[in-house]
Amino acid sequence: MKMIDYTCTHFMDELASKNAVPGGGGAAAMSGAMGVALASMVCNLTTGKKKYAQYEEDIQRIMKDALKIQQELLEMVDKDAENFLPLSKAYGLPKETEEEKAYKEKTLEECTKIACSVPLDIVKKCYEAILLHEELVDKGSTLAISDVGVGIQCLRAGIISAWLNVQININSIKDQDYVSQVENEIKPLLNKGIEICDTVYNKVDKMLSK
Amino acid sequence: MKMIDYTCTHFMDELASKNAVPGGGGAAAMSGAMGVALASMVCNLTTGKKKYAQYEEDIQRIMKDALKIQQELLEMVDKDAENFLPLSKAYGLPKETEEEKAYKEKTLEECTKIACSVPLDIVKKCYEAILLHEELVDKGSTLAISDVGVGIQCLRAGIISAWLNVQININSIKDQDYVSQVENEIKPLLNKGIEICDTVYNKVDKMLSK
Repeated sequence: MKMIDYTCTHFMDELASKNAVPGGGGAAAMSGAMGVALASMVCNLTTGKKKYAQYEEDIQRIMKDALKIQQELLEMVDKDAENFLPLSKAYGLPKETEEEKAYKEKTLEECTKIACSVPLDIVKKCYEAILLHEELVDKGSTLAISDVGVGIQCLRAGIISAWLNVQININSIKDQDYVSQVENEIKPLLNKGIEICDTVYNKVDKMLSK
Repeated sequence: MKMIDYTCTHFMDELASKNAVPGGGGAAAMSGAMGVALASMVCNLTTGKKKYAQYEEDIQRIMKDALKIQQELLEMVDKDAENFLPLSKAYGLPKETEEEKAYKEKTLEECTKIACSVPLDIVKKCYEAILLHEELVDKGSTLAISDVGVGIQCLRAGIISAWLNVQININSIKDQDYVSQVENEIKPLLNKGIEICDTVYNKVDKMLSK
């Protein structure tokens, strides 16, 4: 059974347990999914309203993109768990002989790269979703402005959390070319993503502060 | 059916829809629940380990508190929805006559206070959970340090999101004594909570950065 088909209560219980999955990666994807679901909600509360007619096309586009990203992030909850299993098994490999040691080291390296791949994708998808809220803070119904704020906070948590799951894994990777490539690709997205989140949140806060 | 008994996928679909609930309040409670579930996970990965034997009593206490807060936050997902319904209905009251106008205004004021109550509790529960991670960053297994980081980011999103749901509601409350009382009680928790989250995250980041 897929974890996204668990009830919310059951998912939380599994998250709280000592089982390897769901863990921080699953929580990152789930945070991101909540954040982008709220972008859809804001679109659904904006579309068709006279006051926002000038943004109707944008709202339709954002709604379509948000739905797609939501599905992708939800799939990543289970995909992350699948990709973690080989690493989990590799930890248990024997390391008595030199041959076993070398094999274990090589396998751990490969499996750690596999374990990194979904958190990397979560960073990218959260970043895409952050850009949607960046538009919605100006184009969405002001009646749903707090939902833009909540959405952007969920995505901020999602993108940082996904990065943490990359970071803890790349620390044990010896292939420095791979590590540099990952850092060069992801760190700018992470930093820019957090920056946009904080700008969007400050706009929301300003609109809500009397 | 309670919303926390929905599958994760269904919950996200409902969040994305234009239905009034679940909305930002439900997402805030869910974020908080994920954050505190990760505190439990860290405890479960720490307890019984020789290296952390000196913290065993603390870990047991944190685990007990985390479980309780997780249940409370999950209950708030549905409680928030219940408390929003009267406000939702009050918006539809007629306001043709002076009598109707006065009744509607009075009812809206009362219902808005009711709608505020759960988000206020979510702020408090997230704050309690933040204090647990503040301990865990020093006492939990370093193997689970990224999960402390993810947990604290979920709680940061949860506490800010809950506050946004308080803020958008108190903006329409006329009873300024109530508004001041709420602000005086909650703003220090919010500000202190965010401050602790950022301190804990910086510790995690430092531990993970080579």
